Amino acid sequence: MRTADPLHLQLLRLLRDNGPVSRAELADQLQIPRPRLLSELERLVATGFVTEAGMAASRGGRRSTLVELNPNLRFAAVDLGASSVDVEITNGRLEPVAAYTEAADIRQGPKVILHRINELLAKARVEGVHDRLDAIGIGVPGPVSYRDGVPVSPPIMPGWDRFPVRELLTREHGCPAVVDNDVNIMAIGERHGGVAHSVDDFLFVKLGTGVGCGIYLSGEVYRGIDGCAGDIGHIQVDPQGPMCTCGNVGCLEALFSGAALGKEAAVAARAGTSPALAERLTQRSELTARDVAECAMEGDVTCIRLIRDGGRRLGGVLAGLVSFANPSMIVIGGGLAHLGHILLAEIRSVVYRRSLPLATGNLPVVLSELGARAGVTGAAVLASNVAFEQAS
Amino acid sequence: MRTADPLHLQLLRLLRDNGPVSRAELADQLQIPRPRLLSELERLVATGFVTEAGMAASRGGRRSTLVELNPNLRFAAVDLGASSVDVEITNGRLEPVAAYTEAADIRQGPKVILHRINELLAKARVEGVHDRLDAIGIGVPGPVSYRDGVPVSPPIMPGWDRFPVRELLTREHGCPAVVDNDVNIMAIGERHGGVAHSVDDFLFVKLGTGVGCGIYLSGEVYRGIDGCAGDIGHIQVDPQGPMCTCGNVGCLEALFSGAALGKEAAVAARAGTSPALAERLTQRSELTARDVAECAMEGDVTCIRLIRDGGRRLGGVLAGLVSFANPSMIVIGGGLAHLGHILLAEIRSVVYRRSLPLATGNLPVVLSELGARAGVTGAAVLASNVAFEQAS
Repeated sequence: MRTADPLHLQLLRLLRDNGPVSRAELADQLQIPRPRLLSELERLVATGFVTEAGMAASRGGRRSTLVELNPNLRFAAVDLGASSVDVEITNGRLEPVAAYTEAADIRQGPKVILHRINELLAKARVEGVHDRLDAIGIGVPGPVSYRDGVPVSPPIMPGWDRFPVRELLTREHGCPAVVDNDVNIMAIGERHGGVAHSVDDFLFVKLGTGVGCGIYLSGEVYRGIDGCAGDIGHIQVDPQGPMCTCGNVGCLEALFSGAALGKEAAVAARAGTSPALAERLTQRSELTARDVAECAMEGDVTCIRLIRDGGRRLGGVLAGLVSFANPSMIVIGGGLAHLGHILLAEIRSVVYRRSLPLATGNLPVVLSELGARAGVTGAAVLASNVAFEQAS
Repeated sequence: MRTADPLHLQLLRLLRDNGPVSRAELADQLQIPRPRLLSELERLVATGFVTEAGMAASRGGRRSTLVELNPNLRFAAVDLGASSVDVEITNGRLEPVAAYTEAADIRQGPKVILHRINELLAKARVEGVHDRLDAIGIGVPGPVSYRDGVPVSPPIMPGWDRFPVRELLTREHGCPAVVDNDVNIMAIGERHGGVAHSVDDFLFVKLGTGVGCGIYLSGEVYRGIDGCAGDIGHIQVDPQGPMCTCGNVGCLEALFSGAALGKEAAVAARAGTSPALAERLTQRSELTARDVAECAMEGDVTCIRLIRDGGRRLGGVLAGLVSFANPSMIVIGGGLAHLGHILLAEIRSVVYRRSLPLATGNLPVVLSELGARAGVTGAAVLASNVAFEQAS
């Protein structure tokens, strides 16, 4: 693939993030002479990515024409979880124009799942959401070779190993596609439109059924040599701890995750230490992390303790990672982020106590702002990047 | 500072790393037209950094002139430890032309220590090693703001906090200077001329009196937001462990480091569990990690166990970091690297067992090749980089 023109890329991203801008302002912001800007814009108009959008308010001299991304640009953003699929169709500015959420068991394998995604995207076309897609971004719950666009030995995705996800989507929809893991797309989303906006070095911790970490270093996602950087769920926190699904003992994920918390809640309900959980267990067959969160909000001390214990364990791992990576922010996201401020207080307490003072002097530990939309937002960012690169 | 010309930088580094090269070969390697190369070289000759070096062997056509770095270029490389200072003066190709090692207590403060370094550099001039220095690189045993050229809250360097080390050296010697921490310069050295040659993503673990980690990501040293990335010595490995000098309990460094091993050796000697150590303790007042290494080589089982226990603890921390960072190599260096293969075997065993198989499938865990020279080698690389940037 030829190298993208950095100026074109910068221009397209500026229009994506700021909306309609006058030519005069663009020339100012990019610090290039007006004639050069005009010829560059002309080329981008020819690609169909950029259009004129009327006249700007006068700045004193001649009025300047506004330019914007073509309002018909459409990106598909897909966040594939272990048991669900979220799809958003966005315009060029990454604003959602349609959204679909469905249950989907990742273990059904790539053919079934990708077929279902293709059906959703076709449905969106029939509904008039798009004529054609300009790019697709997809996040999957496992390690990915970003370069090759394929999952690599994903533990909870039987049948997906090295399956050509990117190639299949590109062929089916006739547009570029990009594949990343679910945690990275959340980190990318949070940096684009969330609490980590414009932060260059931060950790995004996803607490869901499992636990993972997206890593931003020097303004770029760091994926590691094999694409599996950030796999913090299997860091050992207790050599005497329970067996983990990975075969080792005492992994963080085995002690604190959606799955672990659900199990502990059931144990507490049956042992009679939590009346609130016990009552919920009479109404349904199993408890989840959400039950623990809700009972904690109502003041159930066992639930508060479960969350604090979990926060302490996660905090211990994060304290080590802060000493190692010296980031400027930690963002907590994923389904368990609704454990909220009890969790956050415990994590902060451990991290601030255990890491080097220099590294924590100015280190916010905060909750994700985008919540459940972090993943699709990041997938849309990736889609737009790959579309812009090919247009440049 | 103006931005350095990337082509000039590339050219100077090529001459540094490969020695005399013909103009024809240079044009080939840099993939630029011969006339452009000649005009660029002319500019570099004018700066005094590049000189002609006779004629190359014929490649069939007209014979091409060899060019090389000016043989009179001199870089000073300083590796400042807690209790010693190593200085090398190198030529442009980073080959040592003189070396000095002295005891020096870092706690004497920056004025005394830097004065002593200046004296050593002046002595080298008197001895005819250099007329003047072209750049100085220095590593110090604590966190550094690389951008500002000052130590920042260094725990074992009283009086050095924010002391203008770079500014002072620059003023004293009239040449650019660069300050980094001791572990980073070792990692840089190992990548330049050691086992990590041309490896882009690796961890360099320094096991000395303390424990630290240099981090190479995507071909660059990663220093973190405050310059203290890699501070792995204070990751907690045992909540019931001994008190650490940092005030927390159970830090890696409190359980496995030169200091910790010396203490444990004395305990073993006095408890009678190691006859070899007991005998050594009759001859002097304290034992060091070297005693443990030597007794282990002679087959002392207690010493072998001490090293294996330490390796297991370090391995546990590294397993977590491998899951987090997914590097392509781990290099073990520093004074304790002479614990050698017993240590290495234990680290490997833990890392390979505990980290994600995808991340360890092809992950060498190896000893430093440069040993005690890693630090000065890296300091010389940094010095040459800053000199070349200013010449470009």
